[in-house]
Amino acid sequence: MLTGINPEQKMEKHIYKETIGELEDKLSDLQQKVREAGLPVVIVFEGWSSSGKGTHMARVVNPLDPRYFDVRTTGKITQDKEMRPFLWSYWSYLPPAGQIVIMDKSWHRLILPEWRDAWGLSHTEVNGFYFDVNAFERQLSDDGCLIIKLFLHISKEEQHKRFKALEKDPSTAWRVTEYDWEQNKNYEHYLHLYEKILNMTNKEDNPWHIIETNDRRFATHKIMKTIINALENRLNASETPKPEKARREKIPQILRSVSPDESMGHKEYNDELEHYQQKLKNMTNKMYARRRSAIIVYEGWDAAGKGGNIKRLTSEIDPRCYAVVPIGPPRIYEKTRQYLWRFMVKMPKDGHLTIFDRSWYGRVLVERVEELTPAHIWQRAYREINEFEQHLVGHGSVLLKFWLHIDKDEQLRRFEDRQNDPHKQHKITEEDWRNREKWDLYEAAVDEMLMKTHHSHSPWIIVESNSKRYARIKVLQTVTDALEDALR
Amino acid sequence: MLTGINPEQKMEKHIYKETIGELEDKLSDLQQKVREAGLPVVIVFEGWSSSGKGTHMARVVNPLDPRYFDVRTTGKITQDKEMRPFLWSYWSYLPPAGQIVIMDKSWHRLILPEWRDAWGLSHTEVNGFYFDVNAFERQLSDDGCLIIKLFLHISKEEQHKRFKALEKDPSTAWRVTEYDWEQNKNYEHYLHLYEKILNMTNKEDNPWHIIETNDRRFATHKIMKTIINALENRLNASETPKPEKARREKIPQILRSVSPDESMGHKEYNDELEHYQQKLKNMTNKMYARRRSAIIVYEGWDAAGKGGNIKRLTSEIDPRCYAVVPIGPPRIYEKTRQYLWRFMVKMPKDGHLTIFDRSWYGRVLVERVEELTPAHIWQRAYREINEFEQHLVGHGSVLLKFWLHIDKDEQLRRFEDRQNDPHKQHKITEEDWRNREKWDLYEAAVDEMLMKTHHSHSPWIIVESNSKRYARIKVLQTVTDALEDALR
Repeated sequence: MLTGINPEQKMEKHIYKETIGELEDKLSDLQQKVREAGLPVVIVFEGWSSSGKGTHMARVVNPLDPRYFDVRTTGKITQDKEMRPFLWSYWSYLPPAGQIVIMDKSWHRLILPEWRDAWGLSHTEVNGFYFDVNAFERQLSDDGCLIIKLFLHISKEEQHKRFKALEKDPSTAWRVTEYDWEQNKNYEHYLHLYEKILNMTNKEDNPWHIIETNDRRFATHKIMKTIINALENRLNASETPKPEKARREKIPQILRSVSPDESMGHKEYNDELEHYQQKLKNMTNKMYARRRSAIIVYEGWDAAGKGGNIKRLTSEIDPRCYAVVPIGPPRIYEKTRQYLWRFMVKMPKDGHLTIFDRSWYGRVLVERVEELTPAHIWQRAYREINEFEQHLVGHGSVLLKFWLHIDKDEQLRRFEDRQNDPHKQHKITEEDWRNREKWDLYEAAVDEMLMKTHHSHSPWIIVESNSKRYARIKVLQTVTDALEDALR
Repeated sequence: MLTGINPEQKMEKHIYKETIGELEDKLSDLQQKVREAGLPVVIVFEGWSSSGKGTHMARVVNPLDPRYFDVRTTGKITQDKEMRPFLWSYWSYLPPAGQIVIMDKSWHRLILPEWRDAWGLSHTEVNGFYFDVNAFERQLSDDGCLIIKLFLHISKEEQHKRFKALEKDPSTAWRVTEYDWEQNKNYEHYLHLYEKILNMTNKEDNPWHIIETNDRRFATHKIMKTIINALENRLNASETPKPEKARREKIPQILRSVSPDESMGHKEYNDELEHYQQKLKNMTNKMYARRRSAIIVYEGWDAAGKGGNIKRLTSEIDPRCYAVVPIGPPRIYEKTRQYLWRFMVKMPKDGHLTIFDRSWYGRVLVERVEELTPAHIWQRAYREINEFEQHLVGHGSVLLKFWLHIDKDEQLRRFEDRQNDPHKQHKITEEDWRNREKWDLYEAAVDEMLMKTHHSHSPWIIVESNSKRYARIKVLQTVTDALEDALR
């Protein structure tokens, strides 16, 4: 993409007719419309050192209302980032509906040597990660986010000239680093790397726009025009076409084939509990020392015993090493972002363990059954979830997903128990009874979820939970074994 | 405080009668009550290495519902923390109403050598910072937050024994660091340091509880009992006594003595604008290089021209170096915390500039005039604000506060202008007209604010703003000069 483009392109009157003032007015109007339309916008500034990212960002934000945009500098590798999946920090920067985020550098850095090293990725792994990056962008577009990707191109000679000029002025000399000079000296090598980045991530929905920056005036005009065109196209686009109806699929009845009836005596339970809790404590210590993280997902029927099960899992672990994240309906500020956002920002640092009490699977369970989300959106979610989990596991996290399974009779017994015990009455609500009426619908949803999102690297484990004792030991043992495996 | 206490205190039946199970049940009940009462609770675990902070935290959280507590590990010095005022990270960890935060280590570390070094503080400065720490705790208590401070004490011999035991087990050996051994070897020196920390921060409202930990069972009981007692005392406390009526004070009429009428010709304006914008760009580059931060506060009459003024201030600065933070009414999640919280979390990193478009002064302006906040609370705020700003400036930030001043006639002209211009109509609302009717009340509030919160290190600058041109240049020049001074 770059090799065909001459960064020396000069500003000539006939190319761009509008004045900067006119472009600024347009941009200011468009920002208002973005807000009204509730459109989230990400503008990515990538490119060579000294291609003028800062200056041109300043031009772009100049006409904007500061309440509705943010500039995010993403170009530094911090410990906080290194200790989490590569895309984690970018997720955290995403704009809510109606806001514009301008990113100084972006997830496309991945391929550059220092970034690769920070995450300890081989060349092959980097290529694998590109699938994650493209999936990330596609998921954002599917969710309605507009991504405008600008690559600021400059010639070797012009870059050299600019470095020299910066170095001459004491107030800017510090800006030119050793890395910058290395880039200039090995210009052709970096050209090749950039070319590869651009080629691997240039998609129809999210194309790259190359900006020739040797002539600053030309660059300013082209950047402003590119952004204006992208915003106008999106805002004027007619309704997105109704997605075709999903093909009816045959889903095997998985849950019905599993009897939740297992049992365990008191004595055996106590022995096993102590054994596995001690072993798990040990394993989490080792995970901490070896900087490995784990993610445990709990899903299951109402009254299946998630709370008590989690308590047994965590009670011997150092509380500084784990967190339990309870998931309820999304808050307002969570709803204005892609639905995976609120989960990604909670992901554990390396060395830590995060337990989700309900999870991102809400989209294909409660949101599907209660019709809170249109069908084509929750149907899309299986793939999104698989990609999301792939990225977590690719980072080296252990990921386990438990479905706590009881049968309908057992649930009734527990509901009635709760109703009759004054200490437990707060645990049972009208909603629980309503959910119970939809048992069959939930069962179908669970079956489809199990079928489409079970993978050897992120397995579903059905936990027979009619006996709480049995269920607790099964989870403890499964987690302990998985961590032991991971540490081997 | 420590020297009189024997860490070898043994568990004996007659000291604590309840079983651990009984204490756990109590704690679980109390958590529910904390939630109902909307009480924010901070439990601080401080103490010697290997005094069992992790183990005892685990005991405390064991009976708690994981949805309503958080464990925060605060003991690491990260770059993110070093680049901000010392208390910044602790502010960010504060619980909302009804939640419990358990802090592993705390702001009391300040005096320890490695912490002092990280923030580049001399011994004298550390002592100064203790005022900030005590002010921080007092502000939290005043806001209704319960702080339970535990110091885990251990004898030199027992600590030595525990280090050895940890080192023997390969899964825990990594936990014993060089620093730990140094602490053990220089036990008396650290005893002296801890003694000092405890003495300087032991206040009637927020006392320290010393826990003898040589005997783990004793320690567990004492910790549980201490927390239970503190929670019960607070929850059973009768209504806080109505604060006495504040003494009527004579406030000088400051605003009336300043004519907002200054003017500036077009030509002069353009020259000055270019001159100062370039100079400011230069200064912010230098501030970045020298890692100095600045905080600019804008307050002023409605239609005084804050937006346009901010735009002129920022338009030449690299957008990666500054942020504009517009302040509106607090969101729900902000309301459930001390009112300064939402400002502290937005404070700039070293090297950056943050501009607040309205600010924490809302408490003594709109909240006072509109009677959104009881009088004794906004009256208390002057001191809180002074302490808060003292802490920012103590960190090395430049802090400037501008009051954009126009007179009533000029405001009317601008309101009518807005009303008549279709492009500006969205900028004028019913609320603006209502505020205008309360001009005199606002004037009194501004006068008191100027009198009580103006200091040479965090000055108020009244900006004559009947002429927008004059006002813009005055702010630009003031900021540029202040940064130049700071860099000298």
